[in-house]
Amino acid sequence: MESPDFSKSELIPAIAQDDESGDLLMLAYMNEEAWRETLSSGRVVYFSRSRQKLWRKGEESGNVQEVRSIYLDCDADTILIRVNQIGGAACHEGYRSCLFRRINPASGETEVVGERVFDPKDVYRK
Amino acid sequence: MESPDFSKSELIPAIAQDDESGDLLMLAYMNEEAWRETLSSGRVVYFSRSRQKLWRKGEESGNVQEVRSIYLDCDADTILIRVNQIGGAACHEGYRSCLFRRINPASGETEVVGERVFDPKDVYRK
Repeated sequence: MESPDFSKSELIPAIAQDDESGDLLMLAYMNEEAWRETLSSGRVVYFSRSRQKLWRKGEESGNVQEVRSIYLDCDADTILIRVNQIGGAACHEGYRSCLFRRINPASGETEVVGERVFDPKDVYRK
Repeated sequence: MESPDFSKSELIPAIAQDDESGDLLMLAYMNEEAWRETLSSGRVVYFSRSRQKLWRKGEESGNVQEVRSIYLDCDADTILIRVNQIGGAACHEGYRSCLFRRINPASGETEVVGERVFDPKDVYRK
């Protein structure tokens, strides 16, 4: 059985990619417990660095990520999960992808290129 | 001008995605200097954690990554770069993508799903 090398680092970056479109949705981190629960539950579970606890993606918004396939990189320190993103949006700001700001390398200016699927005010209770 | 928030962390994860196929190629890290040189040179520059110095991707193998577009995530702590991967392979093991091992969630076994483009022995001198 191969798994991410949590001996190198307690937290390993995990990338969620939309299985159908190939769009990159977000990057977050997994500890070993999040990794194991992701494998066993078929839904993506991260470890929240700010809250210092397991983060079952979508537990509040309903926008869970169903696991389609899981990949490990050559050094076993990056995880890629191809997912079915329920609700169509991964980002807490309501965009399909968290990576919705494109940077112009010459000017350094950003442009919003993502599509807003929901209004965060309607989804997250205060 | 917006940029990754290097005040949170000196090193920010940067994901390289093939601009044509949408395949995820690799994840590495950038410090502020690598970020600036990536913007100004149009080629992806990482910071190597093992060597503790700038890593101009492809400087030895010739497999440079030409920048096509750059994205920043909602928290400014993840970088996505869509690239034209020269030589067709991002991984030092000769695969197109570093994420060439698929994990079976039930058994934990891995299967190589990537395509080997070159033999590392022919590319990297001892």
